[in-house]
Amino acid sequence: MITNKKLIECVPNFSEGRDKGKIEKIMDSFRGKNGVKLLDYSADESHNRLVVTIVGEMEPVKNAVIEAMGTAASIIDMTKHTGEHPRMGATDVIPFIPVRNVSMTEVIEFSKEVAKEAAERYNIPIFLYEKSATSPERENLATVRKGQFEGMAEKLQQPEWKPDFGSDKVHPTAGVTAIGARMPLVAFNVNLSTNNKEIAAQIAKNIRHLNGGLRFCKAIAIDLSDKGIAQVSMNMTDYTKTALYRAYELIKIEARRFGIHPIGSEIVGTIPMEALIDTAVYYLGVENFTMNQILETRLME
Amino acid sequence: MITNKKLIECVPNFSEGRDKGKIEKIMDSFRGKNGVKLLDYSADESHNRLVVTIVGEMEPVKNAVIEAMGTAASIIDMTKHTGEHPRMGATDVIPFIPVRNVSMTEVIEFSKEVAKEAAERYNIPIFLYEKSATSPERENLATVRKGQFEGMAEKLQQPEWKPDFGSDKVHPTAGVTAIGARMPLVAFNVNLSTNNKEIAAQIAKNIRHLNGGLRFCKAIAIDLSDKGIAQVSMNMTDYTKTALYRAYELIKIEARRFGIHPIGSEIVGTIPMEALIDTAVYYLGVENFTMNQILETRLME
Repeated sequence: MITNKKLIECVPNFSEGRDKGKIEKIMDSFRGKNGVKLLDYSADESHNRLVVTIVGEMEPVKNAVIEAMGTAASIIDMTKHTGEHPRMGATDVIPFIPVRNVSMTEVIEFSKEVAKEAAERYNIPIFLYEKSATSPERENLATVRKGQFEGMAEKLQQPEWKPDFGSDKVHPTAGVTAIGARMPLVAFNVNLSTNNKEIAAQIAKNIRHLNGGLRFCKAIAIDLSDKGIAQVSMNMTDYTKTALYRAYELIKIEARRFGIHPIGSEIVGTIPMEALIDTAVYYLGVENFTMNQILETRLME
Repeated sequence: MITNKKLIECVPNFSEGRDKGKIEKIMDSFRGKNGVKLLDYSADESHNRLVVTIVGEMEPVKNAVIEAMGTAASIIDMTKHTGEHPRMGATDVIPFIPVRNVSMTEVIEFSKEVAKEAAERYNIPIFLYEKSATSPERENLATVRKGQFEGMAEKLQQPEWKPDFGSDKVHPTAGVTAIGARMPLVAFNVNLSTNNKEIAAQIAKNIRHLNGGLRFCKAIAIDLSDKGIAQVSMNMTDYTKTALYRAYELIKIEARRFGIHPIGSEIVGTIPMEALIDTAVYYLGVENFTMNQILETRLME
C-alpha cells in the first residue's frame, strides 16, 4: 500500500542562510521531484547556513542532491562567506541516513557513488566522513573541517589529507565538501530536579561515551535558567545499540547520589518510531515483540 | 511520499473455515484490488470460520467487502453450518476501524452506507453494532447475536430486534449480518510471578471496567500451566483513552497485596504505533511530544 522501496534520509548543509533568492534557487532541487519528499528546511542568518532534510528513494535523492551541489557551487562564493558556524564548502556536508529496507553498508556504498559523481562533475574535493570514512581521523566531521574554507588550500597539500575524490586543489569558490553515511541522531534531553549546572555536568560526564559511559551517547550540561533547572542534553548516535531508556535510567541512577531525580525530558526534532517502541517494550516487559506487529509497519510494506 | 488518504481497517468474519475451495472464492474479493491491502487471514476448522484483516481506502474496502458478502451468501448455507464459534450469518460480522486521516464519526457513517448497500443488494437483514449501534442493547455483538442463526427467525419478529437495514425476515441460507465501527483492539497480556489463577482472577476483576476498573479494559485470568504461571489477559478497547501503561501499572499495584509482581507481558497480533509511543513518552516523561516528531508519521503524510 505504501512502499517497499529503499528509503534514505539526507540532510545537506549549504553555506547560504541570508540571501532569500539564492536559498530558493537551492531549494528548487528538492521541490516537486518524484521520489523525494522535503521534510524540513531552515536558513540561519547568523550561521549563514541552510539545512535541508529530505527523505526518498536512492536514485532520486542522489540526483536532487547533486543538482543542488551544482547550484550551490555556481551561486555561493566561499571567499566572501562569513558566519558563526564552521564551514569549508558551498555545499558543506551531506550526511545520508538509512530509513527503510536499506542497510548501513548499502548507504555507505551509495554515499561513495554520490561523492565520486559530484567530484567528477564539479571538480570539488570531497572527503568521506562518519561511517564512510576511509581512515579513523576522517570519521569526525570537526576534524575533517578543521581549518575551515580558508585553511583548506594548505590542508589538502598534506598527504594525510588528500581528498577521497576529486581534485587535490580546493575549488576556488565552492571549497570542499564532506559526504558520508551515519545513523539517525536522536536529540534527547533530560531535566533535573536541580538548578545546579555542575551536578548536570557531572552526570553528563558519567553517562557519555567520551568519559567511559554509554557507547552511542554524547552528553553535555545545559543551564535552563529560565526554567530554573539544569538539563543533561544528549545526542544518541545509534539508538539501535544504545537504547533511550538505558540512558534515562542511568541518569536516574547517577542523580541519586546528588539526592535529585529527572523531572521530565524532551525529544527535539524527529525520531524513528523504533527508538520509542523499543523503550515501551522495555518498560512493559513485552516478550517476543517484533516491529511487524506495528500496524504502521505493515502499512509501509 | 506514502499516503494522505483516509485509511480504514476491516476484519470481516465469514462462516466457512473448512472448505478450501469456498474459502478461496471468498478471499478472491480481497486479493489484487487497488487500494485494498490484505494484512492477514485465518480459517479455523473447529470454529468453521474465516477471519480476514484488510486495510485500505474507504471506497475500495467497501466494494471488496460487499463483493465478498455476495460470494459468501451464494456459497454458504447456514442451515448446514456447524462450529464452536457463535454465528448468525454467512457473513457473520464486519467491523470497520479508523486507521489514518479518518474520524470515528466518518467510519460510523461509512459503516451505515455499507450496511444499507449490502442489505439492499442481497436482501440480508443487518444490525448495526458497537459505535454504529442505534440503541444501547445493540452495542454488544454477543447480545445482537444471541440465539444465533437458528434463533434469528423468531428474534427478528420482536419489535426491539427489527433489523437496522434490509428485510425483517432472515435470509434463508445467508442469515443475518452485524456491521459496525469500533476502535482497534489491543490484546495485551501480563504474566505474574505466581501460578495461582485465583490471584490472577482477582487482579483481573480489580482492573477491568466491568467491576469498577479502567473504562476501556476487559480482563480475564488465564492459567498458563505449561509455563507454570498465571496471566491477566486483557483486551484494551480504546488505547487512546485507557493507556497500556496505566493498565500495566495498575496490575503492578494490585499484585503487591499478594506479594507478587508482573514478570513479563505479551502483545498479541498488531498494535497501532501510537499505543506504544504513548507508553514510551509516559515512562521517559517526555514533555510536549507530538506524533509529527515520529519520522514514520512524516513518511505517511
